[in-house]
Amino acid sequence: MEEFLCAFCQKTYPADPFRTFCPECQEPLLCQSPRKTKKFYPGRSHPLEVMQDFLPLHQANQDLSLGEGNTPLIRLKHVEKKYRLPPLYAKNETVNPTLSFKDRGTAVAIQKAVSLGLDKIGTVSTGNMAVSTAAYGARAGLKTCVMIKEGAHKETLRSIGVYNPLMINVRGDYGELFRKSVLLGRENQIYFANSVDPYRIEGYKITAFEIFFQLKQRAPDIIIVPASSGGHLIGIIKAFEELKQQGFITMHPYYVGVQAEGCSPIAQAFQAKRTHVERIAKAETVAKAISNPDPPGGNLLMRMIGETGGTVIGIPDDKIREAQQTLAEIEGIFVQPASATALAGIRELAEKEKIEPESRIVLILTGSGIKASVTAGHSDMRVMQATLDDLPRIFHSFESA
Amino acid sequence: MEEFLCAFCQKTYPADPFRTFCPECQEPLLCQSPRKTKKFYPGRSHPLEVMQDFLPLHQANQDLSLGEGNTPLIRLKHVEKKYRLPPLYAKNETVNPTLSFKDRGTAVAIQKAVSLGLDKIGTVSTGNMAVSTAAYGARAGLKTCVMIKEGAHKETLRSIGVYNPLMINVRGDYGELFRKSVLLGRENQIYFANSVDPYRIEGYKITAFEIFFQLKQRAPDIIIVPASSGGHLIGIIKAFEELKQQGFITMHPYYVGVQAEGCSPIAQAFQAKRTHVERIAKAETVAKAISNPDPPGGNLLMRMIGETGGTVIGIPDDKIREAQQTLAEIEGIFVQPASATALAGIRELAEKEKIEPESRIVLILTGSGIKASVTAGHSDMRVMQATLDDLPRIFHSFESA
Repeated sequence: MEEFLCAFCQKTYPADPFRTFCPECQEPLLCQSPRKTKKFYPGRSHPLEVMQDFLPLHQANQDLSLGEGNTPLIRLKHVEKKYRLPPLYAKNETVNPTLSFKDRGTAVAIQKAVSLGLDKIGTVSTGNMAVSTAAYGARAGLKTCVMIKEGAHKETLRSIGVYNPLMINVRGDYGELFRKSVLLGRENQIYFANSVDPYRIEGYKITAFEIFFQLKQRAPDIIIVPASSGGHLIGIIKAFEELKQQGFITMHPYYVGVQAEGCSPIAQAFQAKRTHVERIAKAETVAKAISNPDPPGGNLLMRMIGETGGTVIGIPDDKIREAQQTLAEIEGIFVQPASATALAGIRELAEKEKIEPESRIVLILTGSGIKASVTAGHSDMRVMQATLDDLPRIFHSFESA
Repeated sequence: MEEFLCAFCQKTYPADPFRTFCPECQEPLLCQSPRKTKKFYPGRSHPLEVMQDFLPLHQANQDLSLGEGNTPLIRLKHVEKKYRLPPLYAKNETVNPTLSFKDRGTAVAIQKAVSLGLDKIGTVSTGNMAVSTAAYGARAGLKTCVMIKEGAHKETLRSIGVYNPLMINVRGDYGELFRKSVLLGRENQIYFANSVDPYRIEGYKITAFEIFFQLKQRAPDIIIVPASSGGHLIGIIKAFEELKQQGFITMHPYYVGVQAEGCSPIAQAFQAKRTHVERIAKAETVAKAISNPDPPGGNLLMRMIGETGGTVIGIPDDKIREAQQTLAEIEGIFVQPASATALAGIRELAEKEKIEPESRIVLILTGSGIKASVTAGHSDMRVMQATLDDLPRIFHSFESA
């Protein structure tokens, strides 16, 4: 049976879905497996089964899965050429069942919930995590509760509401609600699998394992991940640490957490060499999906990046918009602004640090652009008007650049 | 080198991306491979490479791929139970790179275009096919032209325009434009990979091959596919025919083409035992993605269904909406109304015909619900309002059904 470990006070606790944070230091707990030797089972069909030794699940129940994972890792040669970058790959998490990386974590949390006999789950989110939790809750036949922010777009609410969860618009402080939800969950037996939930973080490890195999059993040299609560990158680093412990790799990648400058509490703390993140008073960025002014995993993420090497940087909105447009126009991939931050991040890095030309760089593209209410650029999008008779003339002048 | 064959006049023509239709009888042509013996290469990484013997491609260029295919086939046990159906599976094509099955066909058409040295592609569509073609055109670095219908939603135009193709709003008859585009394309060296393009149809075969392998090298007993132009189901049937010719299966599945009753020219012709589809004067349905009043592949599809067994049925909008809602609420899958038609179709079939209890049924879910401008149900979607202090009371009454 796994335990939960606090990386700060080094205390362990019995694993418990109603305990996200260390009671001593209030930092997020991490799963710790009792298994000493771990291997992969490549012949199995579902990622949860292939990576079972590395996950806190005794078995994977296919009936709870929506077929998450197995996402493509594709090379971005046009971007490499445009920005003179070494081999650059995109791990496209936008093709998960609800179009974001959140499904990785939700899938594991739901497996755990059902295996423990829980029948109610919840989350505090108005974005990708809400959609993912509502979908997987429906798939598993669980009662699902989503606590949303005031002022959410009607279209966003629809994309959650279609799965018919209980949606609660909570007035009051959203950061406070985040922490309080775990306690309320315990009292009411509702498992709140929020952004730094230990089981959710275990799910994010699978992305790193897939990248390792897609690169023919090598770690990337640099890996760039948008950071909001911190949970996603925490999971990625934890996965490579486990690969290292098991002897699959000898070195960690260089981790680059990217935030939007308009809401970059982790980047600010990291750059200032502080050990603790300070809450941002006002978040203002186009990258809504990573706009968390009070990231619950910020301190833990900085600690892990400090131990393994890496950095956290902030990107201004204009560069995020430009990156979103570039990815769509020259690679055919439409991501939300939060994901485009990863591409903007590698450009920023390439300007400030020397990147070895044989490095292999992986960007994690976290969510689909189709979901974002804000689309970068194209405010000047024009549609040509024509009749059938006009077409020969138009086509005649439609020459390649 | 492959040839193009007309199933009606049995004439063959040299394969040519600028020739979609038979010059004699105006029906869509199909690719015919000169290869007598075909096998699969399961060790290869990309579906185009695994299935190379069955495709008109000498090799797959990974740089043109967006990682399409390898979509999950998941069991729908909650739906089985609710409607007392035999084992029911969903092939979830909504997790392709641009969130619809169209990517399968576009991927093959683009491979062909680049291998032939073409630098301009086009399509006549305002929906999934336009998005897919614009994305793959961008990925391949081709000039891309999308001819859209008047009155398209601004949001839909945005999801195409983000890839920055030439968008032309053509006034005049859209059906006429469809056929004319191929001729205009030839004159201007723009490859219009429209819905019944022979290479596009080859791409749809891959979905059938994947299903065959996911069912452990068996064909499903029943397969249900939404039908619009007819191209998708034509590709699926062609794939199983090739599996039969190569000795992988002995019998075709029972094919069920589903249309929306408000625009069901193929279903009407099939039910009336006509050999030719008649154009519908006015299309009116919630299932916009399959609302084609003058389907160019209708006659060919009916012929293929006639030869292999199967049916084409029309589904009223209220049942389509109900199916869309059911899939989201009890299986966690949010599809566009056109895709929900497949679930409504199997319910319709189960009421009218006896389905053997050991049958294995596959629904193809063609496109994501997030793309559809019209979302079924939930006009009464309610969000509860609360303060932090209200939560204990709300959670206390949040009990499982």
